[in-house]
Amino acid sequence: MYAPAGVKTSRDYAIPDTMKAWVLGDPGELSLREKPVPVPKKAEVLVRIDAVAICATDLEIIYHGPPALIRGGIPHNKNFTPGHEYMGTVVALGPAVDEYRIGQRVTVEIHAGCGQCKRCREGMYTACLNYGLNYGDRDKGHRANGFTTDGGFCEYQVNNINTLVAIPDAMSDEEATLVVTAGTAMYGLTELGGLVAGESVVVTGPGPIGLLGVAVAKALGAQPVILTGTRDNRLKIGRELGADHVVNVTKENAVDAVRRLNGDKGLDYVLECSGAPNAVNEAVRMVNRGGKICLAAFPHQETPVDIAEIVRNNIYVYGKSATHRAEAFMSQKRFDATKIHTHTFPLDDLPTAIRYAKDRVEDAIKVVVKARGVSAAHKVAAE
Amino acid sequence: MYAPAGVKTSRDYAIPDTMKAWVLGDPGELSLREKPVPVPKKAEVLVRIDAVAICATDLEIIYHGPPALIRGGIPHNKNFTPGHEYMGTVVALGPAVDEYRIGQRVTVEIHAGCGQCKRCREGMYTACLNYGLNYGDRDKGHRANGFTTDGGFCEYQVNNINTLVAIPDAMSDEEATLVVTAGTAMYGLTELGGLVAGESVVVTGPGPIGLLGVAVAKALGAQPVILTGTRDNRLKIGRELGADHVVNVTKENAVDAVRRLNGDKGLDYVLECSGAPNAVNEAVRMVNRGGKICLAAFPHQETPVDIAEIVRNNIYVYGKSATHRAEAFMSQKRFDATKIHTHTFPLDDLPTAIRYAKDRVEDAIKVVVKARGVSAAHKVAAE
Amino acid sequence: MYAPAGVKTSRDYAIPDTMKAWVLGDPGELSLREKPVPVPKKAEVLVRIDAVAICATDLEIIYHGPPALIRGGIPHNKNFTPGHEYMGTVVALGPAVDEYRIGQRVTVEIHAGCGQCKRCREGMYTACLNYGLNYGDRDKGHRANGFTTDGGFCEYQVNNINTLVAIPDAMSDEEATLVVTAGTAMYGLTELGGLVAGESVVVTGPGPIGLLGVAVAKALGAQPVILTGTRDNRLKIGRELGADHVVNVTKENAVDAVRRLNGDKGLDYVLECSGAPNAVNEAVRMVNRGGKICLAAFPHQETPVDIAEIVRNNIYVYGKSATHRAEAFMSQKRFDATKIHTHTFPLDDLPTAIRYAKDRVEDAIKVVVKARGVSAAHKVAAE
Amino acid sequence: MYAPAGVKTSRDYAIPDTMKAWVLGDPGELSLREKPVPVPKKAEVLVRIDAVAICATDLEIIYHGPPALIRGGIPHNKNFTPGHEYMGTVVALGPAVDEYRIGQRVTVEIHAGCGQCKRCREGMYTACLNYGLNYGDRDKGHRANGFTTDGGFCEYQVNNINTLVAIPDAMSDEEATLVVTAGTAMYGLTELGGLVAGESVVVTGPGPIGLLGVAVAKALGAQPVILTGTRDNRLKIGRELGADHVVNVTKENAVDAVRRLNGDKGLDYVLECSGAPNAVNEAVRMVNRGGKICLAAFPHQETPVDIAEIVRNNIYVYGKSATHRAEAFMSQKRFDATKIHTHTFPLDDLPTAIRYAKDRVEDAIKVVVKARGVSAAHKVAAE
Repeated sequence: MYAPAGVKTSRDYAIPDTMKAWVLGDPGELSLREKPVPVPKKAEVLVRIDAVAICATDLEIIYHGPPALIRGGIPHNKNFTPGHEYMGTVVALGPAVDEYRIGQRVTVEIHAGCGQCKRCREGMYTACLNYGLNYGDRDKGHRANGFTTDGGFCEYQVNNINTLVAIPDAMSDEEATLVVTAGTAMYGLTELGGLVAGESVVVTGPGPIGLLGVAVAKALGAQPVILTGTRDNRLKIGRELGADHVVNVTKENAVDAVRRLNGDKGLDYVLECSGAPNAVNEAVRMVNRGGKICLAAFPHQETPVDIAEIVRNNIYVYGKSATHRAEAFMSQKRFDATKIHTHTFPLDDLPTAIRYAKDRVEDAIKVVVKARGVSAAHKVAAE
Repeated sequence: MYAPAGVKTSRDYAIPDTMKAWVLGDPGELSLREKPVPVPKKAEVLVRIDAVAICATDLEIIYHGPPALIRGGIPHNKNFTPGHEYMGTVVALGPAVDEYRIGQRVTVEIHAGCGQCKRCREGMYTACLNYGLNYGDRDKGHRANGFTTDGGFCEYQVNNINTLVAIPDAMSDEEATLVVTAGTAMYGLTELGGLVAGESVVVTGPGPIGLLGVAVAKALGAQPVILTGTRDNRLKIGRELGADHVVNVTKENAVDAVRRLNGDKGLDYVLECSGAPNAVNEAVRMVNRGGKICLAAFPHQETPVDIAEIVRNNIYVYGKSATHRAEAFMSQKRFDATKIHTHTFPLDDLPTAIRYAKDRVEDAIKVVVKARGVSAAHKVAAE
Repeated sequence: MYAPAGVKTSRDYAIPDTMKAWVLGDPGELSLREKPVPVPKKAEVLVRIDAVAICATDLEIIYHGPPALIRGGIPHNKNFTPGHEYMGTVVALGPAVDEYRIGQRVTVEIHAGCGQCKRCREGMYTACLNYGLNYGDRDKGHRANGFTTDGGFCEYQVNNINTLVAIPDAMSDEEATLVVTAGTAMYGLTELGGLVAGESVVVTGPGPIGLLGVAVAKALGAQPVILTGTRDNRLKIGRELGADHVVNVTKENAVDAVRRLNGDKGLDYVLECSGAPNAVNEAVRMVNRGGKICLAAFPHQETPVDIAEIVRNNIYVYGKSATHRAEAFMSQKRFDATKIHTHTFPLDDLPTAIRYAKDRVEDAIKVVVKARGVSAAHKVAAE
Repeated sequence: MYAPAGVKTSRDYAIPDTMKAWVLGDPGELSLREKPVPVPKKAEVLVRIDAVAICATDLEIIYHGPPALIRGGIPHNKNFTPGHEYMGTVVALGPAVDEYRIGQRVTVEIHAGCGQCKRCREGMYTACLNYGLNYGDRDKGHRANGFTTDGGFCEYQVNNINTLVAIPDAMSDEEATLVVTAGTAMYGLTELGGLVAGESVVVTGPGPIGLLGVAVAKALGAQPVILTGTRDNRLKIGRELGADHVVNVTKENAVDAVRRLNGDKGLDYVLECSGAPNAVNEAVRMVNRGGKICLAAFPHQETPVDIAEIVRNNIYVYGKSATHRAEAFMSQKRFDATKIHTHTFPLDDLPTAIRYAKDRVEDAIKVVVKARGVSAAHKVAAE
């Protein structure tokens, strides 16, 4: 095929047969191996991975195994490559793919639904009923890269075109890895919750989703946006991302503070990102009648909930889900997601990167790994 | 005003100045008093009450006081008349009311929202933010008859026209008192949940709302509809109202049974009507990914909930609310709501009626009280 | 593979290598040919076709070519097999298909979306942006059997599992071919329009979609349902299917009659199935403020529309789309769709069947063709 | 009543018994009269009018009478005061109003629904079925200030609290009059259409609603936003408000240009603000399958429409409606609505102001009238 000047083809990228890939052994053990570079099929492309962020869920999978809903058991000692918050460059196209072009920079969503089940047909592909069914003779086509199929702690990965979001030249690799995090918050507030400009929001828990939840809520016109948490340095970032008020819950009662800040009326939405055991009950007391609570985090044990308050007050509670539309806001510079990016390491130093993320070394929030263009020493973004 | 032949006017009904009304004294104490007959204002009519059913919430109010969200404390010894599941005949119209005519038979919804708050403007009048504000100089116009304003255990009551549902001649007084109960189930399944024909439903708890929930779900085309409960006689009525399967949870595990009956796939909706402490967790395990749980009942204490399952599986949980559209289905004879009506007493025997409802005397399900046309002895509907 | 007793396998069906198939030559010319029996791929099954109904759109395609939106020109003289309202028996499964089993009776929807485009991802697969892209190196996987890919006037056809609806034993072959027609009406009224019990509906035009629209609207609890048309025999069937009122528009003005029948208030929905030039303007005058007009038919030329009325009255207008949930209602016997089935012919007599459908011979409404079990002489269903 | 320091009461505002008010005589004739200052009732406040903008609809009413849907005929020679785009200061409260306080600056929406009809109960108060019924013994409480009840070309007006939007100190009087215009565009794109970030929009017609439609679409994250029109100076303002592309339709075919600018794919939304006779057909050809067309303007005659394209492509068409949430975006400075404000005149010069607006003198877009603080000479905002 002749390519016009300026149009790139796969030949512009020297795609090797094998690549470096981190592989999960026993819990917490990652080793760097050689794996074949995968080949894109129908509706897929091959992405050269340029940057990967580390998410709390990656740590959960590496140390404890995948979520219970994934059939077929844990991924330890199964040659599995984790990592799901990655971005990169399209270097090869599957058959009949013309939605993307070689050389295009993209970031990726986690889920490609099976496209066959009731939920996928309704457009709710993150609730695919064939979740995890993607191997052998039960292959329904579901993919959740880094969860049920190989992910991004490696040099190349295959992605369904449904999971790609094109990003503009002006967006850095590191910022692009944050699109999915922002998208999770946006999905919770808009698609499920229906947030409209002028409504009020509490975000509980200033982790990456919570902080970008603040940014997204403000970009959507929410007023006021209140952020609660325990660490002043993160609450400060929340303010920079647009929170109208912040509440340090080690210093005052969260529910009292939130209600005081809003004239004792409840707020329209609570985006719960803390996973604290009493978070749901506090959310129920922060939200107004008919309001909505989006759960983006959860405690590991069953936790007492005041069901009666939910029923009496017509409150909605729903689980979160990811999306890819935050990119539009970020490429338009509606908010500066890079405020939560704190460190970058080379791909070969993944274990160090994971330690920074896990133990919050140097107040790490988002830690990114890059295959190229990063020296061995880590780089603090803020410097 | 001259009325054409066949058109009734207020003069056709001899409206007295005072009426008999049951009044709540100390908890559990009702006494029969004389009260002035109220006068309808703008957007209101005067209803001559022909029949009232007794709901579990009436018992709660009579014995324990109103729900916590009602400002201004409990209604004991305040000259308060309870009762909210009533129907009757329009006998006088407020100014400018032409939506209803004198002589029309109607059944009533509980709520008339203030019409001013955010929720009322969104159409969610059951979540009115001015709930209970209807007295004196804070009168926002909210009414919840039998909860925050006088209800139906009397001879006449004023109702906002928003709370009226016209009923056809062919529907008996007793059946008309069940419209609100059916409407509660219908609202939970359609307006909030969006049930469409062919989807699957579990109803947990065969009380009046649960039993009519089965009937409504079948009338909406749900397939299959499974009912769980502890009493075989009520499960049998559930079958008569259309349940495809019933499960006696004293004999087998509810979750196992439900999943077995549906090929181990979860179902699309759970309508939880039992208020059992573990009901929410069981519902979470009965529903499929992306499914919906409507809470129509609740336990009186905080109860442990597996939040993680809700988040991972994109499950929605929401509180119930009442509506008035069930009437269309009932007047079209889509289901026979009278199957849950078991007893009728005269208004003067309200304490006996309450005892039957409270203690389930003679397996009572719905007990109705009528001001006229019932002899002193109670009448079992099934005879 | 060993199959347990009672479980059928492909070997139970002697699947030949070739089959009889009607092929479109010049406009209006169909000839019976031999074609290879197609082989199901991933997410597909092979259906042995047991009955096919003839739709007005089939006649349009056969005589005039496909709708303008199908890229790649008309299907004449391209070895194309039309027919889209078919049902049959699953006789072979593609790889990893376990959603259906061999021997299962199914009816089919038209559309299988590409699963990749924005609309498919939103759940709106009938508005697939890759409509018609299903051949060669631009194969996006979209199928619209009988429109863009081979259809049902033959013995076997491959179908994506997304297009299948299982039907119960008690539903006849002929009735099963009507599920899609009923589904079209249901989709228009519920998924797009949100019809709820007790709302009012006008159906304009008593063709198959209009008549089943009446049946579906009543099954959903609409009150009243008014049907307008020009032929008394069809209006009579409309009454049998549940219409509360019928209006013969050759005898009185449609808008006046409809408004008179509903107390001069407009109705909530108009399901326009006539395609008459002034139908949209009449619909605008029949519907109330905020009401909805679903267009299920259309005139062949541009037609004058009173846009101002649409804007001033907040009216919604939207195009129809097909669905598959009507099956739930039909298998529950909520309405008798067979009332619109008038004739059955053997597959070999397709040209006769088409003549009956096209020229309304013997007041034909729905004409069905069957590959087996029908003698050469036509059979009038009503006899 | 004692007011704490800094809290204003009605005594802080010397409310006179009568006020200056422009009154409509014969078509096009306005005269300045004395009228009584109205008194707020339940759920109402008295607003001292500080600024009023002139809308094309005001001109329509003044010269031609009100829209056809207003019962009771035209407002000429009926002592009627037009004007609906006004803002001001709350100077008195009706009984039980505590939602607003004396001294608060507010801008106003047009509609206060009756609160009783089906549409009001659904939250669609702009489609109130009792539109225009607000006088005498048929008073249903509907108000549309400047349409069915006295409007803002005067010194004081009564408004239902449902129609008020509080504005921040930092927003000028003139900008506040534009909130309703922006809200109209926002409602069309979000509440009805469901615009989400990253979707594509065409706005046809660069009048005030169209220009603010561009601004709102960009603020909501739409990408790209294309504006079409005939005047380069207005298209230039469109660019300043965020349009990614503008098309002068006197120089190139609108449909061709729009499709070329978006890679021949249709766009997701068309916000039609031109009222041109062929605008709907062009919109149908600009939008993609499943896309949505919001009509915010309309031609005065019936106009030919290609219904078939609407049906085949699952396109939605709907009439516009007003809202009040744009304020949140404007007070957050998401876009600069003042770019469309061109002239201000004193209230006494209303006829001059109307001439500027009507004849587009000095390229006038939005012309504002103020009761105080403006000298006799007009002031061009841009200077």
